[in-house]
Amino acid sequence: MNNINIEEFIVLLVEDEADHQEMIRRNLSLPNDQQLKIVDDGEDALSYLFREGDYANPEISPTPSLILLDINLIRVNGTEVLKILKCSDEAKALDLHKIPVVIVTTSSTDKDKIEAYDNYVNSYLLKPGEAEDWKKLVKEIQQYWMGFNLSTSHNV
Amino acid sequence: MNNINIEEFIVLLVEDEADHQEMIRRNLSLPNDQQLKIVDDGEDALSYLFREGDYANPEISPTPSLILLDINLIRVNGTEVLKILKCSDEAKALDLHKIPVVIVTTSSTDKDKIEAYDNYVNSYLLKPGEAEDWKKLVKEIQQYWMGFNLSTSHNV
Repeated sequence: MNNINIEEFIVLLVEDEADHQEMIRRNLSLPNDQQLKIVDDGEDALSYLFREGDYANPEISPTPSLILLDINLIRVNGTEVLKILKCSDEAKALDLHKIPVVIVTTSSTDKDKIEAYDNYVNSYLLKPGEAEDWKKLVKEIQQYWMGFNLSTSHNV
Repeated sequence: MNNINIEEFIVLLVEDEADHQEMIRRNLSLPNDQQLKIVDDGEDALSYLFREGDYANPEISPTPSLILLDINLIRVNGTEVLKILKCSDEAKALDLHKIPVVIVTTSSTDKDKIEAYDNYVNSYLLKPGEAEDWKKLVKEIQQYWMGFNLSTSHNV
């Protein structure tokens, strides 16, 4: 299956831990490094998506095709980012609610899963501990969301 | 990755075409055939999920862990089923909106994709033509949704 135009696929990673950023960066294979955009916290994620401040230029901060979202973030946490993206009128006016959001977290608590699915997360994945398992997880994310899934942009 | 209890995983397939039902049945590997529930149209899907009529008994019609949903269905189409499941107060009262719904369709029109993501589909997949590609698609669904994804039920 190869439904998407991988050259135009933008991943926005919202992750504060440098080693987890690195595991994802290292194992994603995109044609151009600039297709992976990384922000460190929930407030920056919202600024990026709503094109505020430093993120005003759509050529530098293009709308992502997929958002990988940690939950435990400073300032605005991942659950709050998800809720704003999926449920606010402002996000819907910009079609941001249609972007697939995959939570990637160390938490498997019922509370976090329930809040995520209540706020229409597309999928919920658990961060592994070992580098080898990170590789498998990121390859799976790539295969599923960039190979099989069709979204409203960048697809045939 | 093996986050789920596969013995308790129930798949509800909403699909009217017998050959597509067969492709999915043949390629899913669940411990027990009774873990795959099949209904032929959207009205039956809603009756199943809301436990009406023939589907009143939760032992015979257990709440699914994953819904695979065709779009072009008689009586109530897949988009309408999705909208009721994800957005109605009745579905939310029963927590049905938290069940991952994956559309599996022959349609890749913008209209169908936009309606699906507007109504909070978890993922949107295209039906292949060849048996070999069906096998790959169903294996991928199994690997991703039963191996990697965590939902609010049947998970660690």
